[in-house]
Amino acid sequence: MAGIDWQHGVVELAHGAGGRSMAQLIEELFIAEFADPEARGLEDQASLTLPGTAIAMSTDSFVISPLFFPGGDIGSLAVHGTVNDVAVSGATPLYLSAGFILEAGFKLAELKRIVQSMAAAARAAGVRIVTGDTKVVERGKGDGVFINTAGIGALPAGRRLSATLARPGDRVLISGSMGDHGVAIMAARAGLSFDTRIESDSAALNGLTAVMLAAAPGLRLMRDPTRGGLAAALNEIAQASGVGLRIREAAIPVQEEVRGACELLGLDPLYVANEGKLMAVVAAEDAPALLAAMRAHPLGREAAIIGEVVADPRHFVEMETVFGGRRIVDWMAGEPLPRIC
Amino acid sequence: MAGIDWQHGVVELAHGAGGRSMAQLIEELFIAEFADPEARGLEDQASLTLPGTAIAMSTDSFVISPLFFPGGDIGSLAVHGTVNDVAVSGATPLYLSAGFILEAGFKLAELKRIVQSMAAAARAAGVRIVTGDTKVVERGKGDGVFINTAGIGALPAGRRLSATLARPGDRVLISGSMGDHGVAIMAARAGLSFDTRIESDSAALNGLTAVMLAAAPGLRLMRDPTRGGLAAALNEIAQASGVGLRIREAAIPVQEEVRGACELLGLDPLYVANEGKLMAVVAAEDAPALLAAMRAHPLGREAAIIGEVVADPRHFVEMETVFGGRRIVDWMAGEPLPRIC
Repeated sequence: MAGIDWQHGVVELAHGAGGRSMAQLIEELFIAEFADPEARGLEDQASLTLPGTAIAMSTDSFVISPLFFPGGDIGSLAVHGTVNDVAVSGATPLYLSAGFILEAGFKLAELKRIVQSMAAAARAAGVRIVTGDTKVVERGKGDGVFINTAGIGALPAGRRLSATLARPGDRVLISGSMGDHGVAIMAARAGLSFDTRIESDSAALNGLTAVMLAAAPGLRLMRDPTRGGLAAALNEIAQASGVGLRIREAAIPVQEEVRGACELLGLDPLYVANEGKLMAVVAAEDAPALLAAMRAHPLGREAAIIGEVVADPRHFVEMETVFGGRRIVDWMAGEPLPRIC
Repeated sequence: MAGIDWQHGVVELAHGAGGRSMAQLIEELFIAEFADPEARGLEDQASLTLPGTAIAMSTDSFVISPLFFPGGDIGSLAVHGTVNDVAVSGATPLYLSAGFILEAGFKLAELKRIVQSMAAAARAAGVRIVTGDTKVVERGKGDGVFINTAGIGALPAGRRLSATLARPGDRVLISGSMGDHGVAIMAARAGLSFDTRIESDSAALNGLTAVMLAAAPGLRLMRDPTRGGLAAALNEIAQASGVGLRIREAAIPVQEEVRGACELLGLDPLYVANEGKLMAVVAAEDAPALLAAMRAHPLGREAAIIGEVVADPRHFVEMETVFGGRRIVDWMAGEPLPRIC
């Protein structure tokens, strides 16, 4: 059987059909790039060992368009997204699965670039891609490549962070500027060019969450504000904990270029997705130590205390604007941003 | 905000955009149907407890067309497929994640039917769907619904089954008739009608694997012959273990209707996918006990010893045909069957 033409070849239906072409693709691409001892045995599953018996499990499918964007691509994003969902629970992300849905005709060279990017992102985050799956759909029934990752992480005994644990008096923090990812994607789609190129903030947050957990025993919860942006994350917390939140617009870092692009595109940075930022709620007495720990980490240099939890039977998220007024930060209003992750 | 119109409504881009529509869909459909305590907290991940520290992890994406077919649908299949991949490793499947990629315009009534079918299949198999994700793509960029499931199961200490463990003298068994699933799908697609309707064998095999593990300490490996059929599974084993396999065509059960449809469609049942069958390799002395245990289980009534492992440096799978000849059973030859799972 002829080798795979990585330069000019495209995905064919046979690459998902269970025969030799599929075995060859798995062997030459996925097993070679992910290079994991557990994935090498050609089994349909990985056998893994955990440090304890408590785990966190999460999954996300990635359908982002375009597949390659300033600051990342669907491969690195698929690793970061699930690593972050596991990490914000307080767990240490360990293992990922990867499921690919390929459209026939997709260039193998692009697929390889994406898989290499995934492998690099996993190595950088210290997680292992241990099992996977490849399906192929006909042209016009997919869009290049969709990737699902599921992740598991180890939860230390007794650790429990939860969206339900915010209490009046707690402080609300974010790790950095809001809106970078979503604006980078929308700008790339709209073909906008700015003086300063806006890059996605896509990054694995498990290093940052580890220092936060060590610094603040009073940490109630962490959350990565992806789709729906900070506004959605804040509203979910208010709802789940049965509290209100009061935040200050002036305290929320937004890059100048992002703010400008948002004005051009008619977006509000608070509703725009982030892929390398988190918000946290912490007991007031631990807030200074948490903030210091975050700022000492490369991914938390711009961390800020943006507000506090209050008693509010309406579970409103209310913002003091830069003009001194107050407004309700509701769930997403207006047009949604499709395929942002 | 208006309620979801489950009768006439369709999937919209907003259902995947992170705002209130998405929260509503998750709440009213996924959380309501999967009804899992871990999934109720609106967290982005589930916190789980395992009986031990050794686990098996697997993932599969499902892109089957049509979505509903005789004997099942994409929802039940997405549960069975991953439960089986975990179970054949010797693990006890416990938890599943579920990732949905929906095409805008897909009928919410059909989505609900699929999710209900998933929930029922999970209950029947004794596994819990604990975390999930929903993405929406534009019309023409997907095909109704794709589902990814990832699964984890508990591995008892010291248990190790592997595709590498087949040794000359071992026996090869299958749990029942071959080709039912693939032929049911191809027949449904081709619009063929037969006197007896052929149904997919889609089923969760974890009950069967449990009795097999208990009956046969000498069990080397199990495998569910899905894409590529029995032929692919046998060739993978031969390759991974560095052995040859000798099987007898007359010993392989194939339903009469499946055989007839295969002739009509130009298919060979050995290359056609199964979704509720397994093959096993076992030490010769344990083969009778294993066969008896399988036959005593509802999903193994037609179990059979179909051949044995031999020393063969070429790693060939050779079959004694019903006519007394011998032929090599190679990997899939001819046209692949796309989107069979």
